[in-house]
Amino acid sequence: MPGYPKSIEKLISELQKLPGIGKRSAERIALDMLRRDKEESFALAGSIRDVFSSVKECRLCHAFSDGDICEICSSQTRDRNILCVVEEPKEVYSIEATSDYNGLYHVLKGRISPLDGIGPEDLTVKQLLERIRKGKFKEIILATNSDVDGEATSVYLAEEIKPLKVKLTRIAFGLPVGGLLDYVDKLTISKALEGRREM
Amino acid sequence: MPGYPKSIEKLISELQKLPGIGKRSAERIALDMLRRDKEESFALAGSIRDVFSSVKECRLCHAFSDGDICEICSSQTRDRNILCVVEEPKEVYSIEATSDYNGLYHVLKGRISPLDGIGPEDLTVKQLLERIRKGKFKEIILATNSDVDGEATSVYLAEEIKPLKVKLTRIAFGLPVGGLLDYVDKLTISKALEGRREM
Repeated sequence: MPGYPKSIEKLISELQKLPGIGKRSAERIALDMLRRDKEESFALAGSIRDVFSSVKECRLCHAFSDGDICEICSSQTRDRNILCVVEEPKEVYSIEATSDYNGLYHVLKGRISPLDGIGPEDLTVKQLLERIRKGKFKEIILATNSDVDGEATSVYLAEEIKPLKVKLTRIAFGLPVGGLLDYVDKLTISKALEGRREM
Repeated sequence: MPGYPKSIEKLISELQKLPGIGKRSAERIALDMLRRDKEESFALAGSIRDVFSSVKECRLCHAFSDGDICEICSSQTRDRNILCVVEEPKEVYSIEATSDYNGLYHVLKGRISPLDGIGPEDLTVKQLLERIRKGKFKEIILATNSDVDGEATSVYLAEEIKPLKVKLTRIAFGLPVGGLLDYVDKLTISKALEGRREM
């Protein structure tokens, strides 16, 4: 079977590298682009380039930002007494989407992972400790993920933060909302039991 | 809730215009790009631009092509006695994927659609008739879609092609493989009955 012209093949293989895009979707997107207005597809190509030149890192929390300091860090309506520590910039948006948190953030820019050779010095741990030391935080929430590396990162951070005499909490683990005991792994059930609260 | 930085918002909205990409996927792709190597994302932006400058239209069949004449039209192993007429270039690849057809193609570059103001003169109908007149085709297969416009296009083409004294066929309509009578519309069942063959 004769394949697509080479430049279409190339585009399909580049599209397939995107998360959640398989071969069929990549083909559909590529062929659809060729049908669409050239300008529209160029707009996409342009914004891919733009995003790398215009997105900055907030000097305080290390999340994505338009300017030197991000919208959250510079906001006057946020609670400056509470700091939530996450691994990745995108996790800030996941928490913001709940509308349940009004404090500040600190993005570690990764997680401690000895197997990948990533230690605390590769993350923004030093900056976090400095912020806590200089700030007047009443609570630090560790919101790293609940897998092995995320857990290890939290344990490490707890050791470092405890001497600074600030209230330190870890987000809760348990059954996801709508989760069925039957479908959830043993460890999650153990965590859910361990974290049980009086009703 | 503070949104993403503007350039990320822009990228997300551009990504959402792609077929099959909703808001959540667009967000995931955009944030993933920012995590990835800049060069990798630029490669995608580059191939979007390249595809428009390098993909040509085959002078004979009007399908996508690397050069002036496409791989299929210039192949020595294809059956040059049979011509399959499709609406869009991408449909060539759908038929090629079956490996059941070894003839040539003609891409109409659309369908007759009076409601959208598209008539035969907007398609490659003139070129098709010329090819049939000049060629030595033994059979013309009409493989336009089976919806109203596709059907109307076939009826129109049949009227034009019949005077040229060449065998003219239409692809079969009926139950899709694995299709259940219960889930198929009445019209498809009528077509399936009408097209029944002796066993």
